[in-house]
Formats: sequence, C-alpha cells, structure tokens
Amino acid sequence: MRTQEQYLADLAKMRPNLYIDGKQVDRTHPMVIKGSQVIRYTFALADNPEYEPLLTTTSHISGKKINRFTHIHQSPQDLLDKQEMTRKMCNMAGGCIQRCMGCDMLNGISAAALDVDKKHGTHYYDNFMKYLEFFQENDLVAGGAQTDTKGDRAARPAQQWDPDQYLHVVERRPDGVVVRGCKVHNTMAPVADEIIVVPTRVMMEDEKDYAISFAIPADTEGLHLIVREAFSHPREDNLNAPFANIGDLESMTVFDDVFVPNERIFLNGEYEFAGNYALNFALFHRHSYTGCKPGIGDIITGTVALLADYQNVARQGHVKEKLADLISVAELVYAAGIAAGYKSTKASSGTQMPNVVFANVGRRHAGHNVYHELNVLADVAGGLSATLPMSAQWNSPLVGDYVKKYVTRKEGVSSEDNWRAFALASDILTGEYGQVMIGVAGVHGGGSPVMEDIAIMKNYDLKGKMQLAKNLAGIKT
Amino acid sequence: MRTQEQYLADLAKMRPNLYIDGKQVDRTHPMVIKGSQVIRYTFALADNPEYEPLLTTTSHISGKKINRFTHIHQSPQDLLDKQEMTRKMCNMAGGCIQRCMGCDMLNGISAAALDVDKKHGTHYYDNFMKYLEFFQENDLVAGGAQTDTKGDRAARPAQQWDPDQYLHVVERRPDGVVVRGCKVHNTMAPVADEIIVVPTRVMMEDEKDYAISFAIPADTEGLHLIVREAFSHPREDNLNAPFANIGDLESMTVFDDVFVPNERIFLNGEYEFAGNYALNFALFHRHSYTGCKPGIGDIITGTVALLADYQNVARQGHVKEKLADLISVAELVYAAGIAAGYKSTKASSGTQMPNVVFANVGRRHAGHNVYHELNVLADVAGGLSATLPMSAQWNSPLVGDYVKKYVTRKEGVSSEDNWRAFALASDILTGEYGQVMIGVAGVHGGGSPVMEDIAIMKNYDLKGKMQLAKNLAGIKT
Amino acid sequence: MRTQEQYLADLAKMRPNLYIDGKQVDRTHPMVIKGSQVIRYTFALADNPEYEPLLTTTSHISGKKINRFTHIHQSPQDLLDKQEMTRKMCNMAGGCIQRCMGCDMLNGISAAALDVDKKHGTHYYDNFMKYLEFFQENDLVAGGAQTDTKGDRAARPAQQWDPDQYLHVVERRPDGVVVRGCKVHNTMAPVADEIIVVPTRVMMEDEKDYAISFAIPADTEGLHLIVREAFSHPREDNLNAPFANIGDLESMTVFDDVFVPNERIFLNGEYEFAGNYALNFALFHRHSYTGCKPGIGDIITGTVALLADYQNVARQGHVKEKLADLISVAELVYAAGIAAGYKSTKASSGTQMPNVVFANVGRRHAGHNVYHELNVLADVAGGLSATLPMSAQWNSPLVGDYVKKYVTRKEGVSSEDNWRAFALASDILTGEYGQVMIGVAGVHGGGSPVMEDIAIMKNYDLKGKMQLAKNLAGIKT
Amino acid sequence: MRTQEQYLADLAKMRPNLYIDGKQVDRTHPMVIKGSQVIRYTFALADNPEYEPLLTTTSHISGKKINRFTHIHQSPQDLLDKQEMTRKMCNMAGGCIQRCMGCDMLNGISAAALDVDKKHGTHYYDNFMKYLEFFQENDLVAGGAQTDTKGDRAARPAQQWDPDQYLHVVERRPDGVVVRGCKVHNTMAPVADEIIVVPTRVMMEDEKDYAISFAIPADTEGLHLIVREAFSHPREDNLNAPFANIGDLESMTVFDDVFVPNERIFLNGEYEFAGNYALNFALFHRHSYTGCKPGIGDIITGTVALLADYQNVARQGHVKEKLADLISVAELVYAAGIAAGYKSTKASSGTQMPNVVFANVGRRHAGHNVYHELNVLADVAGGLSATLPMSAQWNSPLVGDYVKKYVTRKEGVSSEDNWRAFALASDILTGEYGQVMIGVAGVHGGGSPVMEDIAIMKNYDLKGKMQLAKNLAGIKT
Repeated sequence: MRTQEQYLADLAKMRPNLYIDGKQVDRTHPMVIKGSQVIRYTFALADNPEYEPLLTTTSHISGKKINRFTHIHQSPQDLLDKQEMTRKMCNMAGGCIQRCMGCDMLNGISAAALDVDKKHGTHYYDNFMKYLEFFQENDLVAGGAQTDTKGDRAARPAQQWDPDQYLHVVERRPDGVVVRGCKVHNTMAPVADEIIVVPTRVMMEDEKDYAISFAIPADTEGLHLIVREAFSHPREDNLNAPFANIGDLESMTVFDDVFVPNERIFLNGEYEFAGNYALNFALFHRHSYTGCKPGIGDIITGTVALLADYQNVARQGHVKEKLADLISVAELVYAAGIAAGYKSTKASSGTQMPNVVFANVGRRHAGHNVYHELNVLADVAGGLSATLPMSAQWNSPLVGDYVKKYVTRKEGVSSEDNWRAFALASDILTGEYGQVMIGVAGVHGGGSPVMEDIAIMKNYDLKGKMQLAKNLAGIKT
Repeated sequence: MRTQEQYLADLAKMRPNLYIDGKQVDRTHPMVIKGSQVIRYTFALADNPEYEPLLTTTSHISGKKINRFTHIHQSPQDLLDKQEMTRKMCNMAGGCIQRCMGCDMLNGISAAALDVDKKHGTHYYDNFMKYLEFFQENDLVAGGAQTDTKGDRAARPAQQWDPDQYLHVVERRPDGVVVRGCKVHNTMAPVADEIIVVPTRVMMEDEKDYAISFAIPADTEGLHLIVREAFSHPREDNLNAPFANIGDLESMTVFDDVFVPNERIFLNGEYEFAGNYALNFALFHRHSYTGCKPGIGDIITGTVALLADYQNVARQGHVKEKLADLISVAELVYAAGIAAGYKSTKASSGTQMPNVVFANVGRRHAGHNVYHELNVLADVAGGLSATLPMSAQWNSPLVGDYVKKYVTRKEGVSSEDNWRAFALASDILTGEYGQVMIGVAGVHGGGSPVMEDIAIMKNYDLKGKMQLAKNLAGIKT
Repeated sequence: MRTQEQYLADLAKMRPNLYIDGKQVDRTHPMVIKGSQVIRYTFALADNPEYEPLLTTTSHISGKKINRFTHIHQSPQDLLDKQEMTRKMCNMAGGCIQRCMGCDMLNGISAAALDVDKKHGTHYYDNFMKYLEFFQENDLVAGGAQTDTKGDRAARPAQQWDPDQYLHVVERRPDGVVVRGCKVHNTMAPVADEIIVVPTRVMMEDEKDYAISFAIPADTEGLHLIVREAFSHPREDNLNAPFANIGDLESMTVFDDVFVPNERIFLNGEYEFAGNYALNFALFHRHSYTGCKPGIGDIITGTVALLADYQNVARQGHVKEKLADLISVAELVYAAGIAAGYKSTKASSGTQMPNVVFANVGRRHAGHNVYHELNVLADVAGGLSATLPMSAQWNSPLVGDYVKKYVTRKEGVSSEDNWRAFALASDILTGEYGQVMIGVAGVHGGGSPVMEDIAIMKNYDLKGKMQLAKNLAGIKT
Repeated sequence: MRTQEQYLADLAKMRPNLYIDGKQVDRTHPMVIKGSQVIRYTFALADNPEYEPLLTTTSHISGKKINRFTHIHQSPQDLLDKQEMTRKMCNMAGGCIQRCMGCDMLNGISAAALDVDKKHGTHYYDNFMKYLEFFQENDLVAGGAQTDTKGDRAARPAQQWDPDQYLHVVERRPDGVVVRGCKVHNTMAPVADEIIVVPTRVMMEDEKDYAISFAIPADTEGLHLIVREAFSHPREDNLNAPFANIGDLESMTVFDDVFVPNERIFLNGEYEFAGNYALNFALFHRHSYTGCKPGIGDIITGTVALLADYQNVARQGHVKEKLADLISVAELVYAAGIAAGYKSTKASSGTQMPNVVFANVGRRHAGHNVYHELNVLADVAGGLSATLPMSAQWNSPLVGDYVKKYVTRKEGVSSEDNWRAFALASDILTGEYGQVMIGVAGVHGGGSPVMEDIAIMKNYDLKGKMQLAKNLAGIKT
C-alpha cells in the first residue's frame, strides 16, 4: 500500500496532459495538490487505528491487505463496511471522498464481464482480473468515465449528427482499438492514476462501436483532461480550516484517438451487454451515495446545530424540528444503504451486488433533499452565511476589531469560534466547492434524478403489488 | 395454538362489557365478528405453508411453537422476521394486522421491568414472565392501552383539574390496586382477550400513582369498552370483496375502579421508570410501523398501478413518476426497519431492541407521507373513486346495464373488474375504514408526529455531529 | 327570484329520473332534500342583509335583480365579487356551495358561442342569450356535465372501441339532435333544474359528432341520473350540527338517446371550437376554486385552531407553524383568484374572462395541498378525530357519562363543546362527505392536476422568459 | 433626476469609509463600480421608453417627475406599479434591483412617524417630509440598515452582555444624538448616498435608547462599511455577459459613535412605536419581494427552458412538469403581491400600505421555494452547470476546439450559445453572486422565514375562522 507521498510522487511523474485556465500543466500544480487532498486522506489514514479497520481489508485474490477502495465486495458485510467507511471518510474530509469512483467502476465491471465471456467466449473477465491484481498491488486510484456529452438528447448514439458525442471505436487493430469521444463530469480524474471507461447507456445492434469498456493510464497519449476546479473562498493562514483546504477537480476528458491495448479491454462490441456495464457502475455508485450523502448530511446537521448553539436558538421549536428533519434525511438514506447491503445478492462472478431497489430509493431520497438541506442551513445560519466579512477584514488593523466585536454572539464562545462557524456555513452555501460538490453533484452524481425513477420502475415487482390489489378487490383475472 | 374458531369461542364467553351504539353487547355481535376478521387471519394462517414460517416461531421460555405475535424478540433476525411478517400480513389483510398491539406491549414491558426490580427489589419481571408463559400457552390476543385522555395538555398528570384524565391508582390493597381513568384510541381492544396497560409518558415524583403498568382480562369488572367502529361501504353480496369485509373497532376504555391483583402488576409507583414503559412500547410499535406502513403502501401502489393499467394511462410520465414516489416511500420506511433490526441491541433482560433512531425516522417518514399517498391514489384513480355508483345500482334492473357500460375502460378488462378496482379505491379514499385506519391512524399510530421528532432528538448523537463541524471549521474548543 | 320553498316545489314536479340504491325516486326523496341543503342556502340568503350584496346583482340583459349564480360576469369587479361570494358561502355552508356549476357553464358558453357564429353564420349565441334570459327569469339551478367516461384513455373519442364513451350525436333531425353517452362526476345534478353540456376536450375533424353543447331540463326523457350520495356520519338530534346536515349528490348522468331541440343547442359539429367550450368552463370553474378552496381551507384552519385551543396546545411552536401553513395555502389561492380577476380580459361577447395563468396556478396550488390540509387537521386534532364515540354513545344511559367525562379537556370548555369540535374533525376526516367533497373533489374538481399544468404551459409566455435568459447570457440568436 | 454618470460622480466625492479586503478604499474602486451596476440601471433606464412609465412617477409633494424608487406610494395603483417595476427591472438586471432598500425604508417611516407625533407632540414626520423632499430633489439612493447583530438571541436588547449588539443612543446632545452599534446584511449600502436606520424589533420600556430611527449620509464620520462582495465567476472578455457583469456588495455597517443631528431623526426613545418602524419596513420590503422573487424566478424558468431546448429534452413530461412548477411558484408570489396592492389600506399619513397577510404569504411562499427553484435548475441543466470548462479553456489554443466541440448539443445551436447558456446556469448555481443573492438572500431578505409566520399569525383573523368552525359544529359559546 502506498503512502500519500508515494501517491503524489507517482502523480508527479505523469505526462502533463492536464489543462487549467487554458494552460497545459503537470500534476505538481498547486491546484492539483490541493485538489488531491481528500484522496490523500485515503492513503494517510490507512494505518490510523481509528480508520484502518474500515479503510483496509483483505484481497480475495491475493490474500494481502489492501485499501478497501481497491476491493471487490465479496459479502453483505463488505457492502456494509464500505458504506460505513464512506460516511466516516466524508465526515472527516468535509465532503465527497472521491476515491469511490474507481472502486465502483471496478466492482461494476467485475460483475458484468464474466457473463459476456460465457456467451461470447471472450476473455474480458480474465483481462479484468489481471488488471485488478495490478490495481490492488499498486494501490491505485482510478477516475471513472461514464457520462458522454450526448449531443442531441432526442437522438440515440448512432443517430447523432456528430458521431463523437458518444465515445466510440474508430479503428480496430490486432493489438487493440482506437477510441474517440469525450467523457464529462469526471470528478477527480485529474488526480487519478488510471481512467476506467464504461458505456453511458444501453446500446443497440447498430451501436457496437459504442459498446466499449476499458482502463488506461490517465496520462495516455491522446487523452486531454480539461479541468474545472472548485474551491472554497480563499482564507488568510491564521483563519484557515480543514474544510477550506479541500477542493474538487472535474474533468472534461477528451479521447482524441486514444489507443487501448487488448489486455485493457473489458467490453468491445457485445452491445447487448453495454447496459449491464452502465447500470452496474450506477448501482454501486448509488450505493456509495447511501454512505456519502449521510456523511455530508452529518456535516450540515452539525453546522446547523453548532450555529444554533452559538446564536442561542437551539431550544426554539422550529430549530429542533429542522434538525429532526435533517437527521431523518441522512438516516433514511443510510438505512436504505444498510438494507441494500443486507438484501444484496451475488453476481455470477461472486461480486456482491447491492439490492437495486433499496440502493435507488436511498440515492433518490438523498438527491431529492440536497437543496432542502442547504435551505435549512441557510435558514438557521442566518444572513451572515452570505455577508460574513472574510479573513482579510478580520486581520485588518483598520476594521478587524469591529469584525471581532460584531460576529460575537452568546457569552462564552470566542469571536474566532463564531467567525469560524459562520465561515463554514458560508463556504458550504456560497463557496464554489460547496455548490459544486454538495449542491449540483448531490443532484446528479451517480445518475440524474429521473434515472433513479427508471431504475426503480424497472426492478420493482409492480405486478406483485397489482396482484395484492386484485386480491383485495376480489378480481380473479 | 388456537384456531380462529377457538378464539371466537373464547370471545363469546366473555362478560358483555362492550358498548355499541349506546347498547351493551357481547362479543358475538356481528360488528365484533366482522371487526375480528384481521385478527382471525393471524390464527387461520398460522399453519398455512406460505405464512407459517413467519407467523410462528419457537418460544424462548417454553421451547414450544408459538404465534410470533406472542413472542419476545431474542435476536436481530427476530426483529427482521417480525417486520416481514407484519408487511406480508398487512398485504393480505388489506390494512393494519392489529395483533401487534399486544406483541409490542409484551416486548416493551419485557425490556423495562427487570431494571426496576434490580433497583427496587420488586418482582415485576417475575410477574411478567409468568404472565408471558400464560399468554403464549393460551395463544392470547391483547389490546394495548397507553394513551390517556390527557385533559388539559398544558398541565402535567398531577396538575389536572380532573385527576382521572390520566389513569391512576385510587386504592392500594394487600392483594392489589384499584385503578381509575380512561385509555383512548385502543385499536382492536374489543376483540382482545386481554388488555395491557402502560403509562403514557414520563412521570415525576408527585405522580407515583400514575406510574402503573399491568395486564387484565378484557372483561374485568369495572372495565367498559365504548366502541367506535369503522367499516367500508357496505356492498351487496355478489360484489363483495376481501377489503370490504374487514373492519376496525376502536375503544374508549374506561377503568371505573378496576381491581388489579398483584401478580398482574408490572410497575407500581416507581415513577422514574414510567417513561421507559411508555417509550419501550412506542419503540416496538414504531418498529411495527416499518412493516405495516410499507404493507399498506403496497396496497396503494398496487391499486394505483391497477387503475393506471385499466384506464390505459400507465405509460404516462407523470403516472410512472408517481408510482416511483409511492414505491420510494414504502421502501425507505421498510429499509429503516431493516436497519433498526440490523443495528438492534439487547436490553438487560435479553429482549432485542430496535435501534431507536432508525425505527423513528422510518415511522416518521411513513407518517409524513400517509396523506401524500392517498393524494396520489386520488389523483391517478380519478373522480370515480368518489362518484362510482355503488353495488345496488350495479344490481338494479333499471340502471345496472348503464353502470356496467359506463365503468368500462380499455378493451379486455371486464366491467366487473373495472368496478371492483374503482370500488377498492373508493373504499380506501372515501370509506370510513380507509380514512380511520390508513389516514388518521397512519398519522397517529405509535405516537403523533411530533413525538418522533422528540424521540429522534433525544437519542441522536448531535454532539458528535457538532464536533465534526468544529473539526472542519478548525474550532478547537 | 325564487325562495327555497319554490325551488323545492319545482324539483318536486319533475319526472322521477333519479336512481338511488337501485331504485327510481323523485326529487322529494329525503336524501335529495338533504342533498339540496347547500343550494337552498343560495336562495334562502339572497335577501339576508349580510349575504345579499354578494349573492345578488343586476342582470346586464334585463336590468333586474338576479342571483349572482345566474349572472354573466361583465367586469373585473364581477369576478372579484363572485370569488368573495363563493368563499363566504362555502364558509357558511361547510363546503362546496355547488351552484357555481351552472354559473360557470353559462359563463363559459357565453364567451365561446359568438366566435362560432362569426365564423360559421350559426345562431348559437342567440340561442344562448334566449336561454340565459329564461334562466335568470326563473332563477334556475343548473348542473354542469362535462366529463365523459372516456373509455380507453389512450384512444381519442372517435377511436374508442365503444363509441358512446364520449357523448355524441347519433341522429340529426330538422328540429334538433339526438345524443347518446354518459357524463360523470356531475355534482349536484340530482338537485338541478337543468343540465348544461359541453365537450370534455378539444375535438378533431373526424369528431364532429362529439362537438356538441346544449342545455336541457334535468328530467328530459332519456336522461337517467344514477346517484352516488355522500353524507357525514348520522347523528342523534340533540348533537346535530350544520356540518352534519349537508350532503353531496353525485350523478352518473346517462343520455340514452336524448332529444335536444335546436333552440337549446350551443354548438353542433363545429369541431374546431369544441376545445373553447371545454376550456372556458374549466377556466371559470378553476376561478371558482380560488374562492371555494380558501373557503374550505378556512373551515379546516378554524377547526385546527379550535381544537388546539380546547386541548390547550395553541401556544406550541409546531401548532402555530402549521396554522401559518394552512393560512398561507388558503390566502395564496385566494390571491391568485384576485389577480385573475384584476388581470381579466373581455371575450368577444363582453364576458369577463379570468386571467388563465393566475386562475390555474391558484387552482393548482389548492389541489396540490388538499390532502396536506387534511393531514394537518389529523395531526393537530389527534386520534379522537377517528375514535370519538358517536352520538348514540353520548346519549346512552349506560356509558354517556363516561363519554362526557373523558372528552373533556381544559377547564372552562363544556363536554358538549369538546365533543362537537372533535365530531366536526371526525366528519371532515372520516366521514364520506368530507372525503368526497374536500378530499377527492379537491383534487379533481375543475380538472385533474395534470390538466392545470397543461393549461399553464399552453398559456404562459415561456418564449419571453427564454429571451430574458438569452439576454442575460449574452446570446444574440 | 440624476444620470448614472452623476450618480457615480457623487459616489466618487464621498469620504473613503469602505473597507475591502482589509483596506480602506473610496467609491471609485473597481469592485464598487461593478457592484453599482444594477443601481445604475435605475438611472440609465429612467428615460428609456420601455421602462420610463414604471420607473418614474410624479411626486405627491413637489408635483415633479421623480424616480419611483424615491416615491411614497399614494394608491393601490402605486403599489401595483412598484411591484411590476421591480419584476421588470430584476428581469433585466439579472437579479435583485437593490434600490428598493431605500424606497421601502422611506415608505415604512412615512407610515409610522405621524402617529408618534400625534401622541408625543414630536416632529418626526416634519423631519421626515423635509428629508423626503431633499431625497427626491437629489434623486438619491439609500441603503437600509435594520438588522442588528443581536448577540445572544435568547436575550433582549437591554439584557445583552455587550450592550452594543443592538444599535443604541450613547449620548444625547441639544443638537442631536450619538449612536453606537452595528447593522448587518446591508445590501448595496456601499453604493448608497445615504443610510436609513430603523429598529430591528419591538422595544420595551427599558429599551428607549434602542428605539431610534434616522437617516445620515453614507460617509458620515464614525461610519465604517466593511464590505463582503459577491460576483459571478470572472470571464474573459469575448465570453462576457450581462449576468456575469453584475455584483452584490454587502456591508457590515459599524456605527462607532456617530452623531445624528436632530433634523435627521425620525424616532428617538418612544419605545412603544419602535415595532411599527421595524414592521413597516418589513411589510414594504416583503411586498417588494412579491415583485423581485417572481422576477428572479422568471430568469430561472427561462434558463431551464433554454437549456431544455438546447439539449432537446423540452418535450419530456418531467421537464414540462418542472417548468409548470417553477411558473406556479413565481405567479403565486406575484399574485399575492397584486392582492396585497388591491387590498391595501391607507396609513394616517396617507401612505398606501400593502395588505399584511397577502404580502407575507407571498414572501413566505417565495422564501420556501428558493432552493427548490435552484434544485430544478440543477436538475434540468445537468452536470455541466458545475463542470463546464471556463472561458480561459474555451479560448485556449490547446484545448479550445475540444471545448467547442463537446459543449455542442442539438443541431442548429452554436457552440458559443450552448456554452453561454450553461455558463449562465453555472453562474446561478455555483457562482458566489448566485448563491448569495438568489440563495441565501432569497431565504432571509425582508425577514427570515419564521418572521413571516409570526407576521401572518399576528395579523390574521384566526378568531373569525374559529367562529366558522363553531358555527358548523353547532357550538354556541
């Protein structure tokens, strides 16, 4: 297992195919370092006694101790442990722990590839298992690339006026394929060692070139990672805080005729399985959300409770009701994840699959409530969450004393603690990191809201429920 | 274990202390028979191969096979089985399965009494265990009596202008106590063998007489059960249906100086434990709701899906979204119950206690959504759910043919099936049974909505969440 | 203007074409009398000084004083007065005032017919104006018949496997037409003098026979009114109350080859105008809802406030918040009606048309919140709204004193007042009248929820809003 | 009336008492210029034929043409015009038009001061009218300063451990008073000519020093404006857009022993009237929200519709439903404002006062839905609202072509138009301006949510509604 220093050193060696503010940069750029903070926690805490029992596990292939983010879930307990790890790590990091991207990709492919081989005599599962061994051995971090740009949403992949709006194979060689296209919303891809690709949706017979899944190093020739960064408001050093020190790097990942060698390919043309790859990743990722969204909910709940305490309104009925509401959102989502783990089943490969309905109703409830949670925070935190003078004002010899005097609230809480608490609310509510990672990503991560409805409707025993109604109505047919 | 016939025969032998429409009646009254239907299912299906694995279990005291409704939960699996049984039985019965009242009372007391004995050297747990043996041996049905009339809600029990507004001890004798007061909203008490009583709330030192818990036969001298019945619209025989054949009997249960012998007493004056009895019942009962509310949700979901199919609107986007929403409500609540079972703990007596937070967020979500579910049913079912001509019109030689012609919808579904489906929606939405048992009871059963907020806030690690926020804000104090 | 006695006398003279419980009855049947109560208020109060200024106005055709329910709105003030009258009358009656059905039909046709004549040289508007004169002169009450049974919802009228699922012309004679079909959900049609018919939707060229509008006496040969009644729980006399004394009669109105004379026809085959008739009625009826739904909301608000007071919980934060919420629903809907009146426009005939967007957002908000309002009532009223012993128990020499003692709450409010307040909540929440008229009709009256979305989207200047966004985004095209 | 150039020139002459990033700056600072953009619109468009009819009116004191933002409303039409102006100006500006702060302060004081004079023989209304003349004559812009820092929220002003947590008089001189304290959340105060102060709440007899209202130049000695700025993401010039060019400057406004001359004082110690000043401003400001919130809602609706069109998902059912929902929120709030104007009344001074209940239910509905509207935008806009590569990436010779290719969607819409539309969504959802001005200010502006509940409950005829319920229940007492 790597240290965070080794991880950064490995990033530093990579080909500089990142683009920030229009310029080509390598992975020692300060924004990259800051953007890698949460991933680094997953290395740094792997031997911390508090986090180690969850953050590490034993590989079912090598028998070695590995980071859980590189593990293929083998049992209900694995799923429950992963969920708990995710919540705990998000609690600590202050938001999305990011490394689940690769983990969920690996698990999704692990559960899909063997079925293709069984039908078509291909060797995708072998490819995958060798890749997994390499991945675990090197304690790697992978970005997940699923969402295509999709062009005209009313047209299918093969009908696009620009065929590259879905990533596809443009050339087939004996030793591999060449792909072209662009994957978007690739969270943490700029700080990943590897990029793992799956189709974005079900594919039809005329879309074989779009039925492609593979993994490649994140600095492969032809790959261009166009970065969109999101950080909280910058602060002067004396008022810095863990939450203000993390960030998110999103990538528009362009595949400009990228070569993928055969041994790195996990699906290639067997179009009728493309949907499985897409849905499996979505399933594992939605299950991840049953851990991370409660983890982020905890932070919002804690911030609301803290500011209610500092302002001395914690005993007001409406504050208590709002806290009960925040707690309910988080714990219902978490409960759905527990149920998804408890009612999980095995794929043909042995991978443990969360229950689809529970994972989806959990993710759905989380997504439906993200902005409601932000609303509650804005409500209880009050106007200072938007109007708090920033750190340079606090440090000013001209007006710093005024700021200190007038951010003070009830007796016994220092000006600085008040400022810090309001600044946390301000970062969550008005900082770009908060809005990108908690707001928009909270709605769309793991699939947009309507996708969960579709997943639920597709997997639910609605006929069984209709039969119940028929029984009670006395309908025999 | 009793048969339903034995159960009815035992009811028939009881002292006639029921009052219906102002008249004293015994338990052979037709309304009582109809009102006992769902309880009878719990006897009749106990040896049905489909229901038996859930409906029966092994007594941890006698080692004999018993009805699960008389069981004290000993393991997480017991809680999970009870939850699943509850959903399945509600699915079949068409609503509240009712017999959980006594079961949840028994479990609540089982988990509270030993602690009193340990502190006070009393013998309540022994009393209870002997009673439990008798209860299981005779396969009894108990009503639960918790909610007092409460009089002036702004006054505590001991401060009421009428001291009887909370049930209390009015005389202490060597062989027992005499109690006076009235318990309300006692679902199924009119069809119960026994009545089990616990305090309605935490009690203070000056409220020792109110800290009383016991069990007595439902026809004990001095007990008066003033019945409020709720049935669906009556139907002519040829159009009858299982849903229209069940009913609910609620009791205002008056204790007019009722004697309770010592061996039937489970708490008597140890006021500081009164809250435990109240809250334990509430906890088990809220956990029951994580089974029954999804069970009722299933019926609503099925009815919506059936009517959407019959009217040929099932493919409309808004219908699918509404179904996804109904499913999400039911499955989130169910997931909360699974999590409450999975994260359960043991009381000192060995009784398995559902996790308080999960049980409460589940019950809370159910209660918050009951009327929303009815709304969705009304929406998709359409106006006929309120304006459908009833069975006598269908059977009329004068207009029956018109009714048949004009309740028909898409080709291939018979007039009768259409009528039956609309009639089910009509019963749920506009029948008294539907409104009492699905509507109002769905809001208040197991404790009114605000009580769940209180239970959540009391049991949640809010300080831990505040600490997370402090960590992220860089607050050291 | 008629008295209520004259109105009843006129009903009594009609041909007995009502069917109750499968039997043919005339309009002196006790259920009809009880079901006509709210209509009778509109006669009885027309010379009551408190109601007269709103309930009456001056005919723009005769210059005579008429009941406002027979008036064609001529100005914004007319619309505002009608809205206020509706709220006030619903406040008094305890629910839907019912007589707006005919009023909204008249107004809708008055605003549609002239345009047909202008294009086609027909004389529908003349027919209508003569009918209106007769209608006002005789102070008539009309039922509105719009909603067809619709059969297979996925098929258009002309494509139905049973062509009668939409009312249509089956024979054309020199002196009129013969129609066949069935209109449903015809509130108060059993107590109406006349039935006014409009198409249920937009019609296509092959649906000319379905493009038909007319008015006929409610006892015309071939008309059959199959009644579904909805009343509150029956009470013994000493505990009777105005709310318990009203009822609703819904009709499935069958047109079994009914002849309509030419002078009573307002549209006949000009299919491209059918939608106007349908939408105009909907528009006026949705505007009516901006008066009646706040009127019913007032009753719920008042009942919640009353029970909060009697139980002494009025000062609790959550109760106040719930009341604020109920008030907001009612007043937003009312405000939408005011805005619809204030921003109204004139049809070619001079009829004052409510603003479509405001009328629809108001009706939509009302419909979306009906079950929420019931939920709040159930929440604050508590379990007794479902378990209150009924009047025969109160009057029982055996248990009446218990009932009286135990429905008492805070000092200073009599047992009877407590019982009456809980009984009102019980009638609203669990009585058939409450569920039919407040619940289901609150969702569907004036058009089902999705219809309002469609009306809003069709009439809103969405392009204008898109242009605003383009301006701000710097998009020139 | 001033031009925008004169306005800026006047700002430039002021004493440099602004603090940005800890440094003292004058009002020619680039952030101030950018932050004054929306105020400048109110000058620049005053003679634009499209805006002039609303933006200007005739002074009731001088008879001269004045900017409506300096006007005291004299009629319902004035209130309706102001509401319409506010919506239209917000539509154009891209958010809060800001200048209503001073306007609402003036109107609030105009309606409160005369009553004090009548009781106490003071001359506050004279002072105010002279000030108003000066204000209109010079076409001034005023910031409103109401909200105190409040310190310990559980303590009243006179009980604070730091007495300065509410602004108060610390010295009384023959020619005026000296005040100390701090007002927060003072939107646009940094670009205002004047600051107008009112108490934040009702005051008690021991809080006379806190019962103070006045107006002073914004650069008065002792005044310190500590600025918090909020702008959208910066863009390179070729991709700039109106929405990206506006900003918000909030001020923590410190009164460090500021002298206020007698003629500028509008309340001074008459504590029993303090609440009127507070509530009057709140009332006018909440009425402003019934114009501005729909105006901002229009922008969100337009952006959603535009992106739905560009992505070709506009015909999907869930998109149409979401648009109908956004429209309903905006139009209900607007309708509430219309009703508040239509049902307005006159203060003793002749100032036209919006109806309190309608203004509050409108503002309340707006505030309850702000984050819901953002949620819908995030939902339909999709992930690019958070991950769109910014303008420097677009302009990069290295990756610009990729960005252009892959932000393209349906045929016929240019890459640039797509980028601009997504960038608008990104600014609203993830830019600081959007989050501060649309998000948090949308919740708290004009008073936090719970304040509206309080205002509604205080002004509503709840007794009247209880009486309706009593009538229907047959309760005579």
